[in-house]
Amino acid sequence: MTIQLRCFGESGNAYKAALTLELSGLEWEPVFVDFFNGATRTPDFRALNPMGEVPVMVDGNYVLSQSGAIQDYAAEKSGRFGWADGNARREVLRWLLFDNHKISGVAGPLRFNMNFLPEEKRNAEVNAFMSMRLGSALKVLDANLGGRDWLVGGGPTIADFATCGYLFYGEPFGFDRATYPNIDRWLGRISGLPGWTHPYDLMPGSPADRA
Amino acid sequence: MTIQLRCFGESGNAYKAALTLELSGLEWEPVFVDFFNGATRTPDFRALNPMGEVPVMVDGNYVLSQSGAIQDYAAEKSGRFGWADGNARREVLRWLLFDNHKISGVAGPLRFNMNFLPEEKRNAEVNAFMSMRLGSALKVLDANLGGRDWLVGGGPTIADFATCGYLFYGEPFGFDRATYPNIDRWLGRISGLPGWTHPYDLMPGSPADRA
Repeated sequence: MTIQLRCFGESGNAYKAALTLELSGLEWEPVFVDFFNGATRTPDFRALNPMGEVPVMVDGNYVLSQSGAIQDYAAEKSGRFGWADGNARREVLRWLLFDNHKISGVAGPLRFNMNFLPEEKRNAEVNAFMSMRLGSALKVLDANLGGRDWLVGGGPTIADFATCGYLFYGEPFGFDRATYPNIDRWLGRISGLPGWTHPYDLMPGSPADRA
Repeated sequence: MTIQLRCFGESGNAYKAALTLELSGLEWEPVFVDFFNGATRTPDFRALNPMGEVPVMVDGNYVLSQSGAIQDYAAEKSGRFGWADGNARREVLRWLLFDNHKISGVAGPLRFNMNFLPEEKRNAEVNAFMSMRLGSALKVLDANLGGRDWLVGGGPTIADFATCGYLFYGEPFGFDRATYPNIDRWLGRISGLPGWTHPYDLMPGSPADRA
């Protein structure tokens, strides 16, 4: 049975799950969710995911939301990009949480506000606050990547595929790879993995495609 | 060996770990971190946790940061408030991530900005933006608690002790229990658990104690 992922190209959170499914070699397909026209606010979508967010994974009867939980499921099912023991699993978890809280959790709304919100609704002070927070978190990430190739252990894990969720997008949100050399090299290692695909190519159907 | 938790009373993130350690019956003690005087920015603290945050747990030679990872460790070590199988573990993970991203990840900085930041640095527009985001997430939480006592399964888990992290504090941050009746009743169930303790009592040494 082909795993379905409800997603759209602009969502870095969806990308984390899509990239993990793709690189782990599981049979899956993206199902476009028309977020910008309110699809995640419909009763049908809320019945699938009461949290009202993409991504949502449907594998037969098993429905799962939250990118990190889907990544966890894909790692267990494929036997790839996971952990060797409980301590390594918690190391991965540390990065999933740090990313959700301080990197993607800030980069997501900041990029939305700077690029997809109507001009007249954009708020410079709100964006400056989020930029400051994102910069602090990216400094921590850059320092942690000094002298190591991957966030946990000796190879790529779902921790890397989570934390990079928003960092391949071209729209401006105050992130410049040149400012963070360790992040820059690490993103190069991720995009060098066999099968790596940019979010807009992995999850087609977005306004970016139609433009 | 007594588990040490580096923490301070004002941190709802630290509270999640402290409450889990306390309720699970593990032998532990809080070690006060003087956050408001820069203790988390010192080289010693950064050596312990390169993410620069509380809480940090030290159990013998094992050092672990991120509240959710510490909760995971405490659940495994004590055999309490965890999960029966992989699917239940991912249900718990979904809530840890949703909380980190949308509840505590917003309530934390909002409460800080509204109460602990010097008056002249407070920004009404930033706070309004965060209040709006927090309100949306609390509505999702309230809806999910309709007709059920606990977030995952039939009893309390670390998902509950994570998501309530900031919700027992009295300082104003735009959260009023009366607005969210299901959250209100759920918080009552949590504070009714044997051994439940308020964050300022569980993690002494904070400015609130000295006031």
